[in-house]
Amino acid sequence: MALRTPDQYLKSLQDNRTVYYRGTRVPDVTKHSVIGVAARHAAIDYHLAENPEHRDLCVVSDESGEYSRYYQIPRGPEDLLKRSQLIELATTEGATLVILIKEIGTDALCGLLRVSSSIDKAHNTTYAKRVQTYYEYCRDNDLAIAVAQTDVKGDRGLKPSAQTDPDLYVRIVERRPDGIVVSGAKSHTSVSTNANELIVLPTRAMSESDQDYAVSFAVPIDTPGLVLLASAFDSHGPQTSPIELPISANHKMMETTTVFDNVFVPWDRVFLAGEHEFAGPLALGFVEHHRFTAISYKLPLVDALVGSALLLADMNGISRAGHVREKLVQLISYAETLRGLTNYAALKGRPREQGIASPDPLYVNMAKYHFAHGYHDAVRNVQDIAGGSLVTGPGAEDLTNEETARYYNKYYAGHNVSGEDRLKALTFVKNLVASEFGAYQEVLAVHAEGSLEAEKQMVARSYDNAKAIELVKRLAGLKHS
Amino acid sequence: MALRTPDQYLKSLQDNRTVYYRGTRVPDVTKHSVIGVAARHAAIDYHLAENPEHRDLCVVSDESGEYSRYYQIPRGPEDLLKRSQLIELATTEGATLVILIKEIGTDALCGLLRVSSSIDKAHNTTYAKRVQTYYEYCRDNDLAIAVAQTDVKGDRGLKPSAQTDPDLYVRIVERRPDGIVVSGAKSHTSVSTNANELIVLPTRAMSESDQDYAVSFAVPIDTPGLVLLASAFDSHGPQTSPIELPISANHKMMETTTVFDNVFVPWDRVFLAGEHEFAGPLALGFVEHHRFTAISYKLPLVDALVGSALLLADMNGISRAGHVREKLVQLISYAETLRGLTNYAALKGRPREQGIASPDPLYVNMAKYHFAHGYHDAVRNVQDIAGGSLVTGPGAEDLTNEETARYYNKYYAGHNVSGEDRLKALTFVKNLVASEFGAYQEVLAVHAEGSLEAEKQMVARSYDNAKAIELVKRLAGLKHS
Amino acid sequence: MALRTPDQYLKSLQDNRTVYYRGTRVPDVTKHSVIGVAARHAAIDYHLAENPEHRDLCVVSDESGEYSRYYQIPRGPEDLLKRSQLIELATTEGATLVILIKEIGTDALCGLLRVSSSIDKAHNTTYAKRVQTYYEYCRDNDLAIAVAQTDVKGDRGLKPSAQTDPDLYVRIVERRPDGIVVSGAKSHTSVSTNANELIVLPTRAMSESDQDYAVSFAVPIDTPGLVLLASAFDSHGPQTSPIELPISANHKMMETTTVFDNVFVPWDRVFLAGEHEFAGPLALGFVEHHRFTAISYKLPLVDALVGSALLLADMNGISRAGHVREKLVQLISYAETLRGLTNYAALKGRPREQGIASPDPLYVNMAKYHFAHGYHDAVRNVQDIAGGSLVTGPGAEDLTNEETARYYNKYYAGHNVSGEDRLKALTFVKNLVASEFGAYQEVLAVHAEGSLEAEKQMVARSYDNAKAIELVKRLAGLKHS
Amino acid sequence: MALRTPDQYLKSLQDNRTVYYRGTRVPDVTKHSVIGVAARHAAIDYHLAENPEHRDLCVVSDESGEYSRYYQIPRGPEDLLKRSQLIELATTEGATLVILIKEIGTDALCGLLRVSSSIDKAHNTTYAKRVQTYYEYCRDNDLAIAVAQTDVKGDRGLKPSAQTDPDLYVRIVERRPDGIVVSGAKSHTSVSTNANELIVLPTRAMSESDQDYAVSFAVPIDTPGLVLLASAFDSHGPQTSPIELPISANHKMMETTTVFDNVFVPWDRVFLAGEHEFAGPLALGFVEHHRFTAISYKLPLVDALVGSALLLADMNGISRAGHVREKLVQLISYAETLRGLTNYAALKGRPREQGIASPDPLYVNMAKYHFAHGYHDAVRNVQDIAGGSLVTGPGAEDLTNEETARYYNKYYAGHNVSGEDRLKALTFVKNLVASEFGAYQEVLAVHAEGSLEAEKQMVARSYDNAKAIELVKRLAGLKHS
Repeated sequence: MALRTPDQYLKSLQDNRTVYYRGTRVPDVTKHSVIGVAARHAAIDYHLAENPEHRDLCVVSDESGEYSRYYQIPRGPEDLLKRSQLIELATTEGATLVILIKEIGTDALCGLLRVSSSIDKAHNTTYAKRVQTYYEYCRDNDLAIAVAQTDVKGDRGLKPSAQTDPDLYVRIVERRPDGIVVSGAKSHTSVSTNANELIVLPTRAMSESDQDYAVSFAVPIDTPGLVLLASAFDSHGPQTSPIELPISANHKMMETTTVFDNVFVPWDRVFLAGEHEFAGPLALGFVEHHRFTAISYKLPLVDALVGSALLLADMNGISRAGHVREKLVQLISYAETLRGLTNYAALKGRPREQGIASPDPLYVNMAKYHFAHGYHDAVRNVQDIAGGSLVTGPGAEDLTNEETARYYNKYYAGHNVSGEDRLKALTFVKNLVASEFGAYQEVLAVHAEGSLEAEKQMVARSYDNAKAIELVKRLAGLKHS
Repeated sequence: MALRTPDQYLKSLQDNRTVYYRGTRVPDVTKHSVIGVAARHAAIDYHLAENPEHRDLCVVSDESGEYSRYYQIPRGPEDLLKRSQLIELATTEGATLVILIKEIGTDALCGLLRVSSSIDKAHNTTYAKRVQTYYEYCRDNDLAIAVAQTDVKGDRGLKPSAQTDPDLYVRIVERRPDGIVVSGAKSHTSVSTNANELIVLPTRAMSESDQDYAVSFAVPIDTPGLVLLASAFDSHGPQTSPIELPISANHKMMETTTVFDNVFVPWDRVFLAGEHEFAGPLALGFVEHHRFTAISYKLPLVDALVGSALLLADMNGISRAGHVREKLVQLISYAETLRGLTNYAALKGRPREQGIASPDPLYVNMAKYHFAHGYHDAVRNVQDIAGGSLVTGPGAEDLTNEETARYYNKYYAGHNVSGEDRLKALTFVKNLVASEFGAYQEVLAVHAEGSLEAEKQMVARSYDNAKAIELVKRLAGLKHS
Repeated sequence: MALRTPDQYLKSLQDNRTVYYRGTRVPDVTKHSVIGVAARHAAIDYHLAENPEHRDLCVVSDESGEYSRYYQIPRGPEDLLKRSQLIELATTEGATLVILIKEIGTDALCGLLRVSSSIDKAHNTTYAKRVQTYYEYCRDNDLAIAVAQTDVKGDRGLKPSAQTDPDLYVRIVERRPDGIVVSGAKSHTSVSTNANELIVLPTRAMSESDQDYAVSFAVPIDTPGLVLLASAFDSHGPQTSPIELPISANHKMMETTTVFDNVFVPWDRVFLAGEHEFAGPLALGFVEHHRFTAISYKLPLVDALVGSALLLADMNGISRAGHVREKLVQLISYAETLRGLTNYAALKGRPREQGIASPDPLYVNMAKYHFAHGYHDAVRNVQDIAGGSLVTGPGAEDLTNEETARYYNKYYAGHNVSGEDRLKALTFVKNLVASEFGAYQEVLAVHAEGSLEAEKQMVARSYDNAKAIELVKRLAGLKHS
Repeated sequence: MALRTPDQYLKSLQDNRTVYYRGTRVPDVTKHSVIGVAARHAAIDYHLAENPEHRDLCVVSDESGEYSRYYQIPRGPEDLLKRSQLIELATTEGATLVILIKEIGTDALCGLLRVSSSIDKAHNTTYAKRVQTYYEYCRDNDLAIAVAQTDVKGDRGLKPSAQTDPDLYVRIVERRPDGIVVSGAKSHTSVSTNANELIVLPTRAMSESDQDYAVSFAVPIDTPGLVLLASAFDSHGPQTSPIELPISANHKMMETTTVFDNVFVPWDRVFLAGEHEFAGPLALGFVEHHRFTAISYKLPLVDALVGSALLLADMNGISRAGHVREKLVQLISYAETLRGLTNYAALKGRPREQGIASPDPLYVNMAKYHFAHGYHDAVRNVQDIAGGSLVTGPGAEDLTNEETARYYNKYYAGHNVSGEDRLKALTFVKNLVASEFGAYQEVLAVHAEGSLEAEKQMVARSYDNAKAIELVKRLAGLKHS
């Protein structure tokens, strides 16, 4: 077992997986005009590990051999900081788009490793051993993993078993001696089209009446009955010239609506099957790690927003205008508050079940909320400074055909910058904040890795109410209670 | 002379105009896969005028005959309210996208009619008569007009004549007995590809050293030397199935970088030529009318944001969640504060030069700023309520191919709504707030018809400082000064 | 019957009312060092009516004779606008502090007049006649009226009858042939110490189990058992030199905790007694009028904030700083959006029950929320521009004793302003935004005439959801429903 | 030399200092009804050092002997964190009001120690030795120090020497063989009335024409010609019963307008005298340390805001309301983001001139801005949750006189809380956010230790622009420049 090469990774995707794109089955994802871009984007992970400059950060070596640092179980603040740096590096190479093929899977594995032994204790099961074996399998084979958590949910005001259609949350439809059969569908499964494995987690706490919905397991992507309906969103970017869309032409993440059409899972890959009281802890355990991943991979994005505004303010000749400086400071504070809270959350990380370190949940969730709530304002500030040319400018052919290029090059000249260079900068910023990719980032800001409300809820839960109340009682002269 | 039919309008565009799209000259804009959509979108104006239900609002009849209400010179609050209602109606028919082929031109004409007689008085010129003649020509021929105001500007920290290239603002390069020759380029010219006429206005106040840049005139779109470089932004929408992009497939507005390559303009179409002290008033006169147009045509857009949030909250089954209600109230307040301020600005409108009524500039600019500054937050709220499916959902073919459609229809069912209907709603909302069209609306919010800073500046200028200071002096016991 | 003079008003307060101030019964409120200031502040109402300059606005004359305009039942937009102007004028004379001795009472009477006939219809009662008689009595005697609505409420999570103490909402404890006996307490009753009458309204909708709490009536202030516990808040202001606190030294509004210690009310002054389903409509009917009063009387306050910032920015020599202009524009927009929405709410007013016009509830509540939510930010901006001297400056004696005054006058000189004048301006602004009076205004912004949440609830209720949803359904291609 | 007792400290204030309060010279500040409270509040510093529980934090012991930790020169993150903790502890004992008698002085000494050797190097002066001697004198005598930095400034648009009165910034009026004579006045000097020493620093960078204004020195408080004009703000609090104002009755900080009426300073206490190019660095050096003090001492205040809201939400029975939870989360995020950024700034601290560690300026200033900009919103949220009773409740006598107390105790009962206890809680919160003390905190939030604009400026300066721009250039395909 060893680290894989980018080629090995891409080849591993050429299996019998059931992927649909725009209504048509995709025979080979690596050769697809859109999904292929996503696969090559994901391969950045394997490229980085081969890069001598980054190897120390990307690869760890211990008694289990050499393996990707993503698979390192964090034991304290230092591990968390390194993990965060690795995610930040990889996302920067992804041109602000996260790679995610190991980040999310190892977050899920941390959650499973933490919770499984508690289930075993309560139910005399053997989940912990299964999870450990599965973890080692993925680590030692350097696999790419997707995670499906969010169910399609139907009417969100109703519990799983109360929905008009019982399949609106993924559930166990049959328990067999050799395993379980599951049906239902999950939404928004990222990188599944180009992963090797899929881990399934419950999306929320479950009551007894929903115990068939308390299910967690892992399957290879080419498992029969597993149907990946790839999203058609932002189809054009990956098929457009990088002259026009420098990010989207080369970087893409796929999401699928992930359908389980009577999928069989053998017992050794089942991690929860009816122990409903652990659905909540498992959902949460994953989230505690994953939301830290989220804030780590947003750092290159917010840095790019700041850099875009600084660069275009200069090119436009408006750097000294009072309102521009005001907006630049807002952007800087937005980005650096995220960075400060992220790092501080890592520094305050502490060991949890099984000695697995998780970052401080209060600071992680404040950081995530800060990012998510402020993203649109940050985008507005960048759009404001960049100017209306974001949406009234040329296409790739306008810049390659001399007949039109001469006009664009002449008339886009700015402050100490040629029209060509200013157009390159504008084009990048357009792709970042005024394109389908930009819209994708906006929606992800609000929804990915937990909604604004989920983050607020965790802030409320993680805060030490008693201490603050005690302070006020003391100062108010109330008897301590 | 009479009102034109939609067909007459479309035929009128089939002339010798110089339009480039993606580096290639467009022989007939009405047949172009993208610009054709824009032309048919603009034709809504002519359709509406033929619709008996709307004729009273769309057409006025007076001693000058029957003509489009856009060409009615407003004389008081009632006229302003009617104009606002007409713009609101037409934009609603445009599926939240403004028509603009008469709105902006008549705003420019109001500005020109107001300022030209002042120039005549100061310089003993005959601009007023020329403008009046031109106004009647456009009105009586029911023409579509684009307006080019914003110069490309180069280094915005420098005045026109201080730029490294003198052409970065449009300027007079030659004065001849029969007219002037102009060169330079304007940015962001809307609807020019499918207009009949182009009015050119100065973008800012000009000092004496910039007098060659103090120029205003009108030319037919097919004038030699006038080169329209159509923007490639949002190229795909108009070429996509309405199943996937219900707005963009049928509605489009074009912008051009508008190059004046030694364009000759005869004197009777020249409205300012060197009288630099009137460049500012003329720029501002146009803006006073046009910013009111802007807030009027934003009303259907903000209504659609509110309606989207209400509809999807219901379909998602989350209408009763506290945070959802909070966000709905924010959206409602956002939309209705815009409506209230817009209508109040009309009600406070008063006659200016030549008895032409302009709406109250303080309220117009507060309304515009309110809209512009809050737009991204409103979008965030809609995205938040709609859910992540905005960017992880199906394409048109997914919904027409039964193999995939059966999954989508099953798994997108929501609260009292089938998967089909919920997908239709989601698809519309995606197009509205998470697409290139959505990005276009964001950037327009910040930049079109004046930036956030321009609006703030006008708020400061329009406020009666003395009255507020006097109140405080009186209450503070300071001698009145 | 005629309009009263200020003296008649003050004399009318010298009765047997039970008022406590700081634990001590007050024998004559007009001579009290604090409440006396409040009484004289309230007398501004009677002074204004005598002022020829304002008489047309303050007094109406019709078949019922001459009476205070506050008692005019509004029949349409014009009446609402006049009422708003009158309130604005009086509050300006009150140095930004509302007078309220007729404003609130007539709001209650409008609510009672509107709802009472509905009760009569449903219950075959005679409330409408009683209310009408009482209204005429107050009008014809030019009386000052307080209104007690908010119960002390105890645990706000419990209904009235579920509280541990049944008196935590005012209730009927006995029904007698000649009237009812009530007990309980109301909070925050404004101007009660110096009113002639007290109208009591229910604070919320009541269910059948709370029918004893569904009670409304009116009593003279000196009724036996009615105990007014005057608030001690801001005791010092009215006892301080106007050199130090130019507002508070002369202007004061009193609130009381209003206790009903087995108060007897004869039937002809009872307006609701157990018809629980009308408690909600009555509470709301009052609020629909009173919240319009609220936004009207906030106008001089927000104008004073703007004027303060403008004046001190100039005196400090910072008017041209970019950030100062930004803050001034924020203040102007804050103030004028309130004014625009207030006036527009009046213009959209329409007749309700009994032909009584109420302003548009959507716009009233948006205006109120806008005011309330933005008040603290506005205060911050004024404090920011004014400077830290707000809280580090001299007292009255510092400025009258030459030993210290010479230093202050020398060292507070500013931009084109002497130290003396700048100190006067600063002192006023200190009283406005950095004093107990300032704190009072902050808390009132959030709580008076309905909380932020109450306003949001009314915005949600008043909005036409169906229309917005229909628009989106149409544009999304959904079947109309 | 040893640590002083509280008594020794108080006795040391009984000298010949020139302090005026409300126009009258104060013979003994420790016995004054207002300043005495401030002196006893400041004595908390000495009490804490005697408290065995806190001695380790409060006192350090090294080759220089035992001395107050405030006087420890920070050498790295650990020292900075300890200093922050000490400030947080002392401020908590001060009931959210900072002590400051050593905090600010040692910040100034750090600035002087850092900059003085640079001046010596440039000008061949001996400032460093003077500063070191002075530092040891203060440390070894455990002195209380005030710092006067902000000049009265006159017209802030003009430089010092351009003011109409040359005294509007403190300046050297005479250079003598034995020292200098200074005149002018400083604003907002905190704790000067009850300090032993006063350090004077320039308020800004100075050009050559302002070299007489480039002056720094230290004098004992009882120096002839030094006139302290104590502010009259919040005079009543310290003279009010703690039943009514539990904070203000016992805690007070004094500010003075500090006049230098031809004050002589011997050379060994002069630290800058005309070397104008070091005025800026010295001002900034102080600020780099002092703004970290500021964010440290705000922590108990923001904790108290959160605790107040949590406690009153519970007592009011509204903890579960959606909007209340929303506001609680806002408060928690507000408080904890400040804490996170403060601690992270310390952790990123690094040694500067002379090996003196300063915290990271980017994070310090973001933290300060975050606190300052959000304070009023936080206050609004607390006021909102607490309820209107903040400003309509009883005074001390109402609660001690049984005649009124029985009503208050009965009618203020809440959710699982007696009226007595709820009133205690409300009273504390009133003092915190709705009193002159509350107003003081608001104004301090905006102005103390640097304005909002000063913090924004430092954020802009401290950010690594080049790195962010380089990232974008790389991603946009622009040649590195």
